[in-house]
Amino acid sequence: MSETQPQLDRQQQPEPVGLALVGHGVVGGGVAKILTEQADLLRARTGLAFDLRHIVVRDVSKQRPFAGVPVTTNWRMAVEDPRVHVVIELVGGTTVARQVVEHALSLGKPVVTANKSLLAAHGPELFALARKHDTCIAFEASCGGGIPIIDALSRGLVANRIDALVGIVNGTCNVILTRMTKNGWSYADALKEAQKLGFAEADPTLDVSGRDAAQKLAVLAGLAFNVCVREADIHVEGIDTLQKTDIALAGELGYVIKLLAIAERAAGDKVALRVHPTLVHQDDVLAEVSGSFNAISVYGNAVGHTLFYGRGAGSMPTASAVVADLIGVALGTTPLQFKQLRVYPDSTQPANVLPVDDLQSRYYLRVTAKDAPGVMAQVTRILGDKSISLAAINQREANEGEMVPIVITTHLAKEGAMRQALKEIDALPNIQPATVCLRIVDQPKEFAGG
Amino acid sequence: MSETQPQLDRQQQPEPVGLALVGHGVVGGGVAKILTEQADLLRARTGLAFDLRHIVVRDVSKQRPFAGVPVTTNWRMAVEDPRVHVVIELVGGTTVARQVVEHALSLGKPVVTANKSLLAAHGPELFALARKHDTCIAFEASCGGGIPIIDALSRGLVANRIDALVGIVNGTCNVILTRMTKNGWSYADALKEAQKLGFAEADPTLDVSGRDAAQKLAVLAGLAFNVCVREADIHVEGIDTLQKTDIALAGELGYVIKLLAIAERAAGDKVALRVHPTLVHQDDVLAEVSGSFNAISVYGNAVGHTLFYGRGAGSMPTASAVVADLIGVALGTTPLQFKQLRVYPDSTQPANVLPVDDLQSRYYLRVTAKDAPGVMAQVTRILGDKSISLAAINQREANEGEMVPIVITTHLAKEGAMRQALKEIDALPNIQPATVCLRIVDQPKEFAGG
Repeated sequence: MSETQPQLDRQQQPEPVGLALVGHGVVGGGVAKILTEQADLLRARTGLAFDLRHIVVRDVSKQRPFAGVPVTTNWRMAVEDPRVHVVIELVGGTTVARQVVEHALSLGKPVVTANKSLLAAHGPELFALARKHDTCIAFEASCGGGIPIIDALSRGLVANRIDALVGIVNGTCNVILTRMTKNGWSYADALKEAQKLGFAEADPTLDVSGRDAAQKLAVLAGLAFNVCVREADIHVEGIDTLQKTDIALAGELGYVIKLLAIAERAAGDKVALRVHPTLVHQDDVLAEVSGSFNAISVYGNAVGHTLFYGRGAGSMPTASAVVADLIGVALGTTPLQFKQLRVYPDSTQPANVLPVDDLQSRYYLRVTAKDAPGVMAQVTRILGDKSISLAAINQREANEGEMVPIVITTHLAKEGAMRQALKEIDALPNIQPATVCLRIVDQPKEFAGG
Repeated sequence: MSETQPQLDRQQQPEPVGLALVGHGVVGGGVAKILTEQADLLRARTGLAFDLRHIVVRDVSKQRPFAGVPVTTNWRMAVEDPRVHVVIELVGGTTVARQVVEHALSLGKPVVTANKSLLAAHGPELFALARKHDTCIAFEASCGGGIPIIDALSRGLVANRIDALVGIVNGTCNVILTRMTKNGWSYADALKEAQKLGFAEADPTLDVSGRDAAQKLAVLAGLAFNVCVREADIHVEGIDTLQKTDIALAGELGYVIKLLAIAERAAGDKVALRVHPTLVHQDDVLAEVSGSFNAISVYGNAVGHTLFYGRGAGSMPTASAVVADLIGVALGTTPLQFKQLRVYPDSTQPANVLPVDDLQSRYYLRVTAKDAPGVMAQVTRILGDKSISLAAINQREANEGEMVPIVITTHLAKEGAMRQALKEIDALPNIQPATVCLRIVDQPKEFAGG
């Protein structure tokens, strides 16, 4: 690390830490802004001076000049520049970004990245490469934007056996769900507005499908449980088929629907991993997390319930995390931690993932039934046969023969049993498929006395 | 640091890190429990093995034996033992604790402490002593129990200019206020219950006076603003004079009363520092923080609003922070950070504290007045003369001549003007002093669009 970690004397002027910023989009712009505008503060606080030597972009002609920093399309030249000590990868995706990261690491240069897709897809190989070349990867900005959740898991909560991690980790979905909940809008209208306001991409698939949340969960669960999690390990459902009717009906029952990423310790050293729209009780602190904010609840065996809340995306919040990582890398604390902790995907075993059929949950069902004699009995018998116990059931008055919604909530049941039950319910003659099925997650209650 | 930081080879068995645990009360017991019960997990995760060599107590006869660890009353012997690499100070207070810490530091041994009183009273001297002997002080457990807020301020948010820090940092007060709010109890009854449940000491003065919160604010504000804050710099009011009437009336106005510790950046590089019972809007996330939980909102110029939530006290949560610090010290990350960051009270200037009279706040007043003609006009004229603008005013119907409460809320006003106004109001013939005066703090709203 001697090359990448200039000796800092508290009295002397520090040798600046040379940086290559690869990718100058929303987050890259924020990073450049902090490094420029807060240079004095950063130097006073850390003794460090940063020197942004290259900004690498896709198209130089589209680039506004930035404070005299050379702009190039040649990432290889920038990464190889001997005056560059740390490489910041903000390209996104898994093709060019992967090349950039691999090249930097193979030169022994630390990489700071916000790229959860890359880490979820190629984490083990990249971390091993970093270790091989005695360098490190810092990735605070990959999950939860400006929330220091990677730090919390790898430092602040490191003395705990983590029992569960439950988070709202996708700002786009949360903006859409907040609008659907508070204004009664449809998914399509809420998405359109989110796109207009810059909270959703033109192609929102990665976010609304739940995949982005799953990639983040892979990173977070790996650190929390010290196992190697791949995106494919995670059961994922998005918000793109969610209907406003169900948000309204859930509200009547006292629930708010959020896209949750959930990792839980299960019996036999297994880990239950899932991302799906979830009914959370309106008194739950996660129910209050609105708009583009993220929040991650972590349950540790010693610390109990902790929650980390902040902006999960956006230029400056994400840049805040990137620059924090730069400082950790340049001070030498991040490399030291990277070297010694055994929590990264190259030094952990593949997660022993609980099969989807064994996932346990409470359920919310909306069955659309013809109001005919015997329908309710048929539906409840199917659930009973699968040992799925009902918590509440509600059917509104309607004229006989009309289609009516029956809303059912259940106690804890297994996913496999529920899937079988749904198949049978949807095959009933007086039922209009597909029955809507969402999960209800009750977080542990705070200690009643205090 | 070579003595205190055994070389860790990922393949070899590590040399254990020798510990002296000075103080074996509630938190000390939790630390010993984690070190014993989670030894395998800690070793797997960090490569570290800890060896608890001494437990120092006040009275050996009162001590239950703990897993073969020698128990002694001789702290000096324990600290001086050459096989002890790190000293954990959990004595509390500022007399013996100070001697223990000074002695350990002067031997070049790192100290892990939960002692905010000691840091608030003698921080600059102790940090300077640590630096002189090339060692460090780790103090995550001193504020917010198991919440990694010290780490967040000194690492995760380090790229931000911090604009404000607003926290519920005293669990005892929050337990009492939660009970007063939810059950309508008096302060005396709520305190009695908190004592019975172990949430308040037999002598609760340090907590209910707000002093404990002020000591924590001194530590947190120092890190956030990179200035040296003494407890005496902070304007402090406790919850011990709070009446249930005001909690109920605040509730009718949509507010919840919490003891907040507040540090804000003010004009001219000044810092506004205060601890007092505060009306927070019931939609504010801090209003939801109940019982012994703590929460700290931090506003950074890049990251925006972040919040850190968890148990602020208790055996295991605080022990979680102590052991995290032990790991940081043993890995070498904490010493490195301690050496290079210039955020600690020995390397920062004394805070330029905004005078109390210049503090700005909204106010809640409860004037007790005889229902006589002209009283309202007199009260409002006094406020108007001091340029204090009214937000709302409410006087219930009463029989003429009876004493009635007039509840007034104001827009932003200066503390000095308000104090003068209160003096004049309480001197009016038809007013029964003392008029109740509480502050209302509106936290910045989350971004409306998302």
